[in-house]
This record gives sequence, C-alpha cells and structure tokens, in this order.
Amino acid sequence: VAIIKTVSFIGAGNVALHLAPALKGKGIRVQQVCNRSEKKGRQLAQKTGAVFVPDPALMKPDSDLIIIAVSDDAIAELSSRLRTTGLVVHTSGAAGLNVLGKCSPRTGVFYPLQTFRKGRRISLSKIPFCIEADSRADEVLLADLGMRLSGMVARLDSEQRRLVHLTAVFAANFTNYMYSAAEEILDDHGIPFSLLMPIILQTAGNAKHKDIFSLQTGPAVREDHGVMEMHRDLLKEHKDLRKIYDLISKSIIHQKRKHG
Amino acid sequence: VAIIKTVSFIGAGNVALHLAPALKGKGIRVQQVCNRSEKKGRQLAQKTGAVFVPDPALMKPDSDLIIIAVSDDAIAELSSRLRTTGLVVHTSGAAGLNVLGKCSPRTGVFYPLQTFRKGRRISLSKIPFCIEADSRADEVLLADLGMRLSGMVARLDSEQRRLVHLTAVFAANFTNYMYSAAEEILDDHGIPFSLLMPIILQTAGNAKHKDIFSLQTGPAVREDHGVMEMHRDLLKEHKDLRKIYDLISKSIIHQKRKHG
Repeated sequence: VAIIKTVSFIGAGNVALHLAPALKGKGIRVQQVCNRSEKKGRQLAQKTGAVFVPDPALMKPDSDLIIIAVSDDAIAELSSRLRTTGLVVHTSGAAGLNVLGKCSPRTGVFYPLQTFRKGRRISLSKIPFCIEADSRADEVLLADLGMRLSGMVARLDSEQRRLVHLTAVFAANFTNYMYSAAEEILDDHGIPFSLLMPIILQTAGNAKHKDIFSLQTGPAVREDHGVMEMHRDLLKEHKDLRKIYDLISKSIIHQKRKHG
Repeated sequence: VAIIKTVSFIGAGNVALHLAPALKGKGIRVQQVCNRSEKKGRQLAQKTGAVFVPDPALMKPDSDLIIIAVSDDAIAELSSRLRTTGLVVHTSGAAGLNVLGKCSPRTGVFYPLQTFRKGRRISLSKIPFCIEADSRADEVLLADLGMRLSGMVARLDSEQRRLVHLTAVFAANFTNYMYSAAEEILDDHGIPFSLLMPIILQTAGNAKHKDIFSLQTGPAVREDHGVMEMHRDLLKEHKDLRKIYDLISKSIIHQKRKHG
C-alpha cells in the first residue's frame, strides 16, 4: 500500500471512539472492530460501518492497519492473539513499541497526545500524533495518516514518547487538579469560579513562550513569606492542599535560585 | 461625583502601567502620578498626561479617586502620608481593606485578577475587577469603573478576596510551574514543547465546566501504579519534581476516594 485506506480496531474505548469516526470522516474504511464487551464493540462497528469480531484471533488480516486502542496492560495479550503480517500499532504513550512483541513483522505506535473522556467529542484536527515504527516505510505510512487527521505529527522513539507522556501529566493532569483544588475552595465560600477563567486562559496561552519559568509570578517567586503564611492559614482545613502549597512554593524558590 | 472622571496613582509598577493607560483610553483623566523612583514615575506621568509628584503628602486632593498600586508592604505607610477626604483604593488581592487605615474616610479596593508582567501588554477588557468599599455609594463608583474597563466586576469582602488570591496561586502560578517543569524535561531531551500546547489549552478550557475533578485523567486517578512507577523512574534526576509528582498523585487518589 502507498497510503493507508483501510483500518481495523481492537478496543472500543475512548481513543477508538474518537479515532474511528475521524478516520471514517477522512475516507478511510473501518473494516472490523474487535472488543471484549460485545455491546460496546457492536455499537462502534455499527457507527462506522464495520463488522464486529469477538476475538483478535478471528480478525481477517486484510486491513492496511490494525489499531490496538486498549489499556496498556491489555496490549501484549491481545496483540499476541493476532494472525497477521500487516502493520499493527498501539495508541499508548507509556507502553514501548516492544510490547507488541512478534505479533507481526510490522509494528508501530500511533499515540494521540490529548485527553479523551467519555461522552465528550474532541476535534482531532489539532491533536499531535506521536508515531514510531520498526521500518522507515511504516513511519511514512503512519506520518501520512497523522497528517490527514491533524496538522501535527512527531516521530518519537519509545523513550521520548514516555517523556512526553510524563510531561503531559504535569502540564495537563496536574494542572486540572490545581483547577479542581481552586474550585473546591471557592465553592466552599460561594465565590464563582468563573472569576479565575481569564487568568487560567492567559497562563495557559503564555506557555507557548520559551523559558516559561521566567513568566513565574506569585508570592513564592517573590519570596513573599507574609502572603505565603496567610495562604497557609487559609488552607488549615485542607491538609493535602497545604502540603502541595508548601512543596510547590519551595520548589519554585529553589528553581528561582538555580534559574538566576 | 456621580461617576469617576479623574484618577491619580501612587506607584508606577506593573499594575499602574497597565491600569493608567487603560483608564486614559476610557476618557478618564490621569492627574497625578506619585512614585518613589522619580524616573519611572515621570515616565508614567508623561505617558498619561499627568503631573509627577514625589511624595503622597504633596498630592492635591482633587482627584475623584486615588489608586495605590504598590507592593502590599508599602500600602500602609504610603497611604498614611495622604491628605485627602476623597476615595482611596489599593489594588492588592492579599491585603485587607483595613490596611488603608484612616488615610481617608472613604477607602476601598480595586483588585484586577490577572497576572501582570513587565514589558507585556495585557488587554484589560476581560479582566475581572474585585471591588470592596466602606460605603455602598463608593462600591457603586468602583463597580462602574470596573464595568467601563472590562465586562466583569465582583463585589468581594477582604476575606473572600484573599481566598480568590489564594486560588489564583493554584490555578495560575502553580500551573505555570507545571508547564515550566514539563518544558525543562522536554528541553533536556530535545523534544519540542509545542507538542503539549493542544492538551494544555484543552485542559484550561475544560475548567469552565462544573465539578472539574470529574474531568481528571491520567495514571493517578486510574491508580495505574505501573505507569506511576515508570514516571518516578524517569524523574530520578529531578528530585523536586519527583516529590511533587508523588504528592499530587497521592492527593488525586485521596480526592478520588472522597469524590466517590
């Protein structure tokens, strides 16, 4: 194949639910959907015009690409049940390419760097796809597929992809938790969270600049211990958040001294 | 006065540098700028068509409003030097209304909830102004002034304003530090930070939903200890970040159990 025209899925969770219709929308045929839960598998198959298959061992090997979009723990076992010589990828940030073992001579990774949740549609048009493959030819195929879905493709090896996945935990999962902490405190006092939206969006937009630490504001980077003590006092009912406040503040002060 | 038509400033730092031209742009006359550093004070005065005054004790009491935009520590001393019976406000999130003491029978707070930095212009048009005043009449004046500058004004007492200031540390200062941590790790390995911008912007935009914790994704909320151990291993050269990783992950797991 010169480009990927047909795909099949193993898995019908959040990633597959986003990827399969997007691929279909780009004219790529979704042929088979294999899933442990028959109900969810049949739903996705029906939605994309595919055939439901109950077991990877029963999948026909005629798709240009098989996408395994399941939890990290399940990739090795499910891929080992495949009978194919075609290209097989997983969609995980944390799992290495090697987790696919010898399920096929042609393996790869197609990792969409975004946070997918049930019941929320996210446009794939701006999502970076991190790709990896055993061969240069398959890299080209996956890069082309990523480019058709979005404007952003990065070729990363498994170690680099793990680092990207780790930094996404800081930049997305932990920031979500910071927002959630702020919401909890404001809700307790009947203050609308919407007051924080402009500063949240401004701060997120600022991250596009180089040397993000130079944009650091707030009491810690000013070493304003009076304000920090007042904040600690306000957090006396929130023990977890006070520990987080202390540790991040201390780390900002360390970083400032290193940063010079 | 029915509305505020003239203002004077004490301070010529980031907040004054943003507020004074914005007020002028709305047709409000900036009359006097008082600042410890004569050079910076004269620069702001010149830019806004105001007169420079070296000492608050020498300011003419004929402005509808005097805005004290200085560091928290300096508010009490500078305001005590004023000779006025007009409305005097400070712009601090952390300082109470009472820090203005008895500098005038009419005191208040006009706190713009945004992160201002030197050399970067930020449009005030979407910034919430948190206002407080001794009297209902002065609250109305400050609310009107805030409405003329932006679409968002909130009346908060000093305790509520302190809580908003605290939560802005979590939602903005600490998230900036999370972005900076991610940048440091990616830079070390030559991976472009731009890969993270879509997930950063998506996560920030998600904060407008209620119950932000229900949007939490990532290994901690899944209690995926395998991935967390891998991440800890990747952080072995980053001791501060590993402590932050452990503490926030633990707190997310606690919160999940509380959240149910």
